[in-house]
Amino acid sequence: MRTISESRCFGGVQGVYAHASDATNCEMTFGLFLPEEAEFGPVPVLWYLSGLTCTHENAMVKAGAQKWAAEAGVALVFPDTSPRGDEVPDHPSYDLGHGAGFYINATEQPWAGHYRMWDYIAEDLPRVITANFPIEDERQSICGHSMGGHGALTLAMSLPGRFRSVSAFAPISHPTASDWGRKHFLNYLGTDEATWAPHDATLLMRERGFEGEVLVDQGTADPYLNALMPEALAEAMCTRRQPGAVRMQRGYDHSYFFIASFMGDHIAFHAEALHR
Amino acid sequence: MRTISESRCFGGVQGVYAHASDATNCEMTFGLFLPEEAEFGPVPVLWYLSGLTCTHENAMVKAGAQKWAAEAGVALVFPDTSPRGDEVPDHPSYDLGHGAGFYINATEQPWAGHYRMWDYIAEDLPRVITANFPIEDERQSICGHSMGGHGALTLAMSLPGRFRSVSAFAPISHPTASDWGRKHFLNYLGTDEATWAPHDATLLMRERGFEGEVLVDQGTADPYLNALMPEALAEAMCTRRQPGAVRMQRGYDHSYFFIASFMGDHIAFHAEALHR
Repeated sequence: MRTISESRCFGGVQGVYAHASDATNCEMTFGLFLPEEAEFGPVPVLWYLSGLTCTHENAMVKAGAQKWAAEAGVALVFPDTSPRGDEVPDHPSYDLGHGAGFYINATEQPWAGHYRMWDYIAEDLPRVITANFPIEDERQSICGHSMGGHGALTLAMSLPGRFRSVSAFAPISHPTASDWGRKHFLNYLGTDEATWAPHDATLLMRERGFEGEVLVDQGTADPYLNALMPEALAEAMCTRRQPGAVRMQRGYDHSYFFIASFMGDHIAFHAEALHR
Repeated sequence: MRTISESRCFGGVQGVYAHASDATNCEMTFGLFLPEEAEFGPVPVLWYLSGLTCTHENAMVKAGAQKWAAEAGVALVFPDTSPRGDEVPDHPSYDLGHGAGFYINATEQPWAGHYRMWDYIAEDLPRVITANFPIEDERQSICGHSMGGHGALTLAMSLPGRFRSVSAFAPISHPTASDWGRKHFLNYLGTDEATWAPHDATLLMRERGFEGEVLVDQGTADPYLNALMPEALAEAMCTRRQPGAVRMQRGYDHSYFFIASFMGDHIAFHAEALHR
């Protein structure tokens, strides 16, 4: 692992690091915020998964998350959204290839050699951060935006016991039924839709749910509502009696101005679970 | 004036607008955050001037300012840092030309036709925002970062009665004696150093000071300390008995991680003066 930068931030340290990943078979970059408490011992951690076209940097600089994390004494991890590099296959469209890993392990060519973002987030990066930083691996929660909300919800429901709480900003909620999902699953996973189902938050909610609380915020002025399908997830949550909330926020769009506006709520929500 | 975008943010609206500027003789873009209170009547305004290489966008997305402004009921204006466009002369170095207007009116060629950022901030943009938005022109304060801290301090001291309070993050404090300043003054204003003095915060502080309070934050790990020269401004402030503070913040650098960490303090400082 190598250090790209470290800056003091709200009394803690906002770092950017790179490491060789076995999962994605390339160098990966991530951001990590450590609150001041980390100088004295291990701290809980909140994962933040970003959306299409984003890198490790977007939320790190635009979400205003460090203030709340510093107050809560919680570390933040900001992974990249796909493998990167000249040797990693890409695609001309903005929502496939670089910046669009979709938090799944691709099985189709030309993607299968590098696009293993599920394993990267579930196995590889956790090893790196717990080996190199004072992170309590018993106290983890996860959140994300859009494609990253999809990732957070599917990882949280598929890895019981790993995360204490999960939240999402405008998540891709039902990708097997949406333009944001079907295209990716077809390219990365192939034509057998049975392989898609484990990566659909609504289907997972119907089938198993989450043992902790779930918080979802969705702007009513989001231009991507048709692709996000929050109504499917809300219906599944209520049908299952899943503890949590889907909040429709009047007038907010899909931008980081929306995310920043509710980041304080989300980190307070996770901090309560993490410090329990 | 035309609207480029408007996003709901912390209950208010973060907009981006463009307009033809008489001062800079080109189209200028700016960001404006209006808190929810602006729906019901005019609100006070805090100007934020950005640093070298920045646009209207940097602070708008990276400083976390809207949260605090929403709480304080204060509007925020984020002007660009120079004239822009193919017809506007530029320079290959990062710190001259586009993104480096230095908040002065250039008198030398090829700059004089467009580089009139003093007039733009002091006269042109105030007219645009008070004509188009519910802004109280009797309640204004100003802050900035680096080159923008220089702009905020020099404008505040040179326009008595305009601003109720002034603050700066890592300002260029003594540009007539610094690499960040002499190069710009020579190019934009020419060889007569008498024309430079009205644009040096330390010299203005020695000569006249500011009628309100002055708040300056400076990171001790800032790699540009030699060019910023906070010691000159601090000495001038104390010698004058200027009400205010220069705070040396341990371990912080020159980045927006530093700015975001203390933005809450700065907006609270300005809100106290604006709501008095």
